[in-house]
Amino acid sequence: MNFSSRLLEDAVAEFAKLPGVGQKTALRLVLHLLNQDKSDVEKFSATISKLRNEIQFCRVCLNLSDHPVCEICSSPKRDHTLICVVEDTRDVMAIENTNQYNGVYHVLGGLISPMDGIGPSDLEVDSLLDRLKENDVKEIIFALSATMEGDTTIFYLDKRLKSFNITISTIARGIAFGGELEYVDEITLGRSIATRVPYTNSVSR
Amino acid sequence: MNFSSRLLEDAVAEFAKLPGVGQKTALRLVLHLLNQDKSDVEKFSATISKLRNEIQFCRVCLNLSDHPVCEICSSPKRDHTLICVVEDTRDVMAIENTNQYNGVYHVLGGLISPMDGIGPSDLEVDSLLDRLKENDVKEIIFALSATMEGDTTIFYLDKRLKSFNITISTIARGIAFGGELEYVDEITLGRSIATRVPYTNSVSR
Repeated sequence: MNFSSRLLEDAVAEFAKLPGVGQKTALRLVLHLLNQDKSDVEKFSATISKLRNEIQFCRVCLNLSDHPVCEICSSPKRDHTLICVVEDTRDVMAIENTNQYNGVYHVLGGLISPMDGIGPSDLEVDSLLDRLKENDVKEIIFALSATMEGDTTIFYLDKRLKSFNITISTIARGIAFGGELEYVDEITLGRSIATRVPYTNSVSR
Repeated sequence: MNFSSRLLEDAVAEFAKLPGVGQKTALRLVLHLLNQDKSDVEKFSATISKLRNEIQFCRVCLNLSDHPVCEICSSPKRDHTLICVVEDTRDVMAIENTNQYNGVYHVLGGLISPMDGIGPSDLEVDSLLDRLKENDVKEIIFALSATMEGDTTIFYLDKRLKSFNITISTIARGIAFGGELEYVDEITLGRSIATRVPYTNSVSR
């Protein structure tokens, strides 16, 4: 592209580094910012800078946090004997949005993926084991993606957790609520038949 | 969404103000920035702030510029007797990318659009007339979108320019080069028949 301004070109180049943002989208975003008040753009810029400089990882669960220990880990209302192991912050947010979980979390920071060069040592495994040693934990729930990487990570962690006297569970897999049977993919449907559960009236939506 | 961090929530809210960026995309962009080096994020933030604070409008053609007079308007290599009237900066860039135009520009900053409350007084019309009075301009080319707003703007400007002894032209409209006839929309095809031009060998790609 032919830019009339170096400032414009630099800003477009910076936006185009973001995932899923090409040159044309970057230009559109930059021109949008140019139409905003100076104070608004200053706030945009300052918020990003502040975020990167001030955000911390909770030293208990390793979730993103404003404080050394996050709100969930420091809350007396949560059940600290129940730890849900997730891949990243987005998963914590997704589970929190359900309002169905009252335990605490442990953020692994990734999944084992030999193809991407991510091994167990790249994940927050030791910090999880330390938590189990130092605290009274009754159950670990694996809430990882139902992919090869997720399953590999669960397999590995399960072996490491054998020495502890803890209940280990994974979130249920099967057809989604509201899903019509004919549109469910074959693997999910096949597995959901194989892993069928006894019908009880209490298992309802 | 349930954010574990206020800093994160603020940054997502700022990104979600951008056009075409929703909460989920904003979160993805923010988490991407959190994975970058602090210096890279600082550069991103500083570039945006610098852009908004330092960019200027060329005082001749009103295009975005790093200097009081833009590179095109200050270039002795350009034909200053030929002014191409466009809607905004993006159109200047699009025409510059063709490498087919050697004149200068005039950026209106919009098109007349009563539906959006944009009238002639919101556009850079007076500055265009001043340029014509003070300089030796031979031709004005309207390179505006082939829409109701573009046509209205051309109609208005043409009336205002009547008193000057200047050639007025618009960019050609018709079927696109490389376009297959059967896929051309009816209005374009109909108009391109009505406005047919004499065949000459020089009119080739």
